[in-house]
Amino acid sequence: MAKKETHAISPTRTEDYPEWYQQVVRASDLAEPSPVRGCMVIKPWGYAVWENMQRVLDAEFKRTGHKNAYFPIFIPKSFLEKEAEHVEGFAKECAVVTHHRLEAGPDGGLVPAGELEEPLIVRPTSETIIGATFSKWVQSYRDLPLLINQWANVVRWELRTRMFLRTTEFLWQEGHTVHATAAEATAEARQMLDVYADFAEGHLAMPVIRGEKSAAERFPGAVSTWTIEAMMQDGKALQAGTSHFLGQNFAKASEIKFLDETGVLQHAWTTSWGVSTRLIGGLVMTHSDDDGLVLPPRIAPAHVVILPITAKAERPEEVIAYCKQLQSDMRALRFHDRNIEVELDLRDLRGGEKSWSWVKRGIPIRLEIGPRDMAQNAVFMARRDRAPNEKEGLPRAAFLERLPALLDEIQSNLLTRARQARSERTREIDSKADFYAYFGTNQEEAAAGTGFALTHWSGDPAIETQLKQDLGVTLRCIPLEASAPGVCPFSGQPSKQRVVWAKAY
Amino acid sequence: MAKKETHAISPTRTEDYPEWYQQVVRASDLAEPSPVRGCMVIKPWGYAVWENMQRVLDAEFKRTGHKNAYFPIFIPKSFLEKEAEHVEGFAKECAVVTHHRLEAGPDGGLVPAGELEEPLIVRPTSETIIGATFSKWVQSYRDLPLLINQWANVVRWELRTRMFLRTTEFLWQEGHTVHATAAEATAEARQMLDVYADFAEGHLAMPVIRGEKSAAERFPGAVSTWTIEAMMQDGKALQAGTSHFLGQNFAKASEIKFLDETGVLQHAWTTSWGVSTRLIGGLVMTHSDDDGLVLPPRIAPAHVVILPITAKAERPEEVIAYCKQLQSDMRALRFHDRNIEVELDLRDLRGGEKSWSWVKRGIPIRLEIGPRDMAQNAVFMARRDRAPNEKEGLPRAAFLERLPALLDEIQSNLLTRARQARSERTREIDSKADFYAYFGTNQEEAAAGTGFALTHWSGDPAIETQLKQDLGVTLRCIPLEASAPGVCPFSGQPSKQRVVWAKAY
Repeated sequence: MAKKETHAISPTRTEDYPEWYQQVVRASDLAEPSPVRGCMVIKPWGYAVWENMQRVLDAEFKRTGHKNAYFPIFIPKSFLEKEAEHVEGFAKECAVVTHHRLEAGPDGGLVPAGELEEPLIVRPTSETIIGATFSKWVQSYRDLPLLINQWANVVRWELRTRMFLRTTEFLWQEGHTVHATAAEATAEARQMLDVYADFAEGHLAMPVIRGEKSAAERFPGAVSTWTIEAMMQDGKALQAGTSHFLGQNFAKASEIKFLDETGVLQHAWTTSWGVSTRLIGGLVMTHSDDDGLVLPPRIAPAHVVILPITAKAERPEEVIAYCKQLQSDMRALRFHDRNIEVELDLRDLRGGEKSWSWVKRGIPIRLEIGPRDMAQNAVFMARRDRAPNEKEGLPRAAFLERLPALLDEIQSNLLTRARQARSERTREIDSKADFYAYFGTNQEEAAAGTGFALTHWSGDPAIETQLKQDLGVTLRCIPLEASAPGVCPFSGQPSKQRVVWAKAY
Repeated sequence: MAKKETHAISPTRTEDYPEWYQQVVRASDLAEPSPVRGCMVIKPWGYAVWENMQRVLDAEFKRTGHKNAYFPIFIPKSFLEKEAEHVEGFAKECAVVTHHRLEAGPDGGLVPAGELEEPLIVRPTSETIIGATFSKWVQSYRDLPLLINQWANVVRWELRTRMFLRTTEFLWQEGHTVHATAAEATAEARQMLDVYADFAEGHLAMPVIRGEKSAAERFPGAVSTWTIEAMMQDGKALQAGTSHFLGQNFAKASEIKFLDETGVLQHAWTTSWGVSTRLIGGLVMTHSDDDGLVLPPRIAPAHVVILPITAKAERPEEVIAYCKQLQSDMRALRFHDRNIEVELDLRDLRGGEKSWSWVKRGIPIRLEIGPRDMAQNAVFMARRDRAPNEKEGLPRAAFLERLPALLDEIQSNLLTRARQARSERTREIDSKADFYAYFGTNQEEAAAGTGFALTHWSGDPAIETQLKQDLGVTLRCIPLEASAPGVCPFSGQPSKQRVVWAKAY
């Protein structure tokens, strides 16, 4: 990749990765902080990325037999308390509604009034409130499987927030299903993990490791939690989606029972699974560079921007007309599951400023069109997967013919590049000393080098506790694609396979 | 319409209209009450109706230049207090978050803890929180117009709730726009009213009157509120969507200012507009009958259901195969803006019960397919706009060819029928005595007869107060399609045009 002297984003990734991330989110117009603590405003460009994610995932959920529904945002406190581990996991960070009106207080300002008999929790997740409804919907084995998804906002009162990655309110989908047997529920949870993994790799160009969480990292109340783990450019892991086999825990808490084919009343088996706007943060940290956001074409709100260069044009309206025709011709082309989306930027801004604004927003292809391009029936093209100043003139017809393949090429380049980056920062480690050296180097070296460590593990949770305490490293997952057995370097005990360790978001 | 002896819904409309409504909502699988006070569960069939509404409206919003974004669900109390009328309008019924965790209380149960410095209100509408962000986005006339929409849930702590029509939490969209001039903002608010009206008539087959609200019925903080008013089958009005010109009230409250072309700093002009899941309630009460829901094809989750009749079949699998082929052939056909959606009901239920479940769910066309139909290469069809027992045999090819036109015909029949019902219950009234007689008859007669009264009005709000108090009647709107001037029958004063009065939901 060609190097530039200066970059659009300051600081750069190597200078200060966390701050670089915040600046990319801002400069790309994805989102900004809101006046409400820990909540963000998702701007149109960011929301359009989310809409694309929703469109693709929603179609996948429907293809696999799920239907959308909507359940209340409020959860009575007593519902949350029904499952012991669950309430333990969420009680510490939840928004509590205690009153249902405001009235004039003693000093003139408004104060909460109309205290509720039972406080309501703004849903941090909906197992308990949905379970209460499912207990009415499920009577017999004929009602199963029950396959429901909800698109919703949820609230978790996190102490430290970071845009998209960890916010007080976020948007997500939560699938909730009920099955007659443990095997069916397990298969469902695994199937949805595959849907997430295929989506992450196929659309977000974000390579992920599919695996199971250790007991310490499980969803509160789950029997098994599966996860897809992605590596960010600083080598840290991002949990990008999870799918839970809940056993009969929530069925018992919510009394979801059915008469089986032999007439016996049984507790059902449930699952839940979700991905959120956190994926947008993952997208940013997987592909973006020191010039801003880089969007994979399959998820980009628009694929191409046309920037008319009319400053020196004798008849600017002819250049604009040429651009409009080009826009219309491109819009008639298909790319993957939709028509090609094209922005025509007619803002009254300097050409350089305008072009950089689209670099920073990560649009896959920029076309600069001036009088000379028009005269030659050509386009002057830049690709976001190459350096900003690397541009190419192409005959109009050839460009149009090549455009869908070009977008495929960019999509594929991004995935290859991300896979390579992950591979360079993934190491098999077989001694405790090497493990501590790998993760224990000073911050600067760590930023340049550490990533995933693939290490044997006896299964003892005490080792997790120790490594988290010593190094801030957690067990990301036990990969589904198992490696050979070996010896745990921390305990000397036998180990069935290597597991993935990393620092994580 | 043919009369049946018994009906699927009890009570019938004439027996008990409010209870009939609740029963239709339940029997049609649209929604059900939740364990949370005033909140409902929107079931898959109901949510699919909402998704269809969203798809059509979202495309219209985008066509008219709006972009989607997302803003926080929480509004700091001080923000709500910025606009005096606004807070007055919403403070009495809002969910107040006062704590951010639960902890073990003295008696072992969990109690709210971590009191917030400033209470947060769960948004009842978002003018104030969005305004705070817009004040940062708008600096210059070049930033205008700013055209944003949000799909979201909102909460209003209503004392009396009724599914879809008035619930504590509901789903909606809220448009929020900023303009450089009052004229542009007014034009925007009027344009979006037209989008709503066209949608109501064109897709929901729900005739509406477009008009302006009187001062007493305006949105709290608005300068002008426009509304679409529909008539339900009991003659009551339903406010189905509103669009507000907010003047500079919210721009001043939120400090939304811009430098105009002459370099002068000005407060901007804003609008807001919204429709909600309330539209589903309106849909139910406009078209449904004593057998359940009736869905206009353009908004129905599915257009056709195939009910295989295999009880007497020698080779049931052949009937099923015939049905599957039919389903696939129908799915290849277009109807309006999407392919025809077809359900194949293979549930293990008695034929009558199965068929009635689809009548109650309002699906436009039912096909009963048995061995004889298969042998004759035919279908046996029933339409939801006719009596349930009115069925028709058709050759398969002829049916397929006619299907899109048939759906158009049903759509059009429903609109015509609703227009006629409204017309029968709309009366021009020119004396106070007639007005009181019209609305003041006893409940039973009223249910059979009253509806909209078109009456002259001097503009005096005291008349509204009196009529509301005496008769429970409100001024629904001052129609945009103005009638000739006349004399107000309540005051003897001159009146510019007739206005619409009704009892309302």
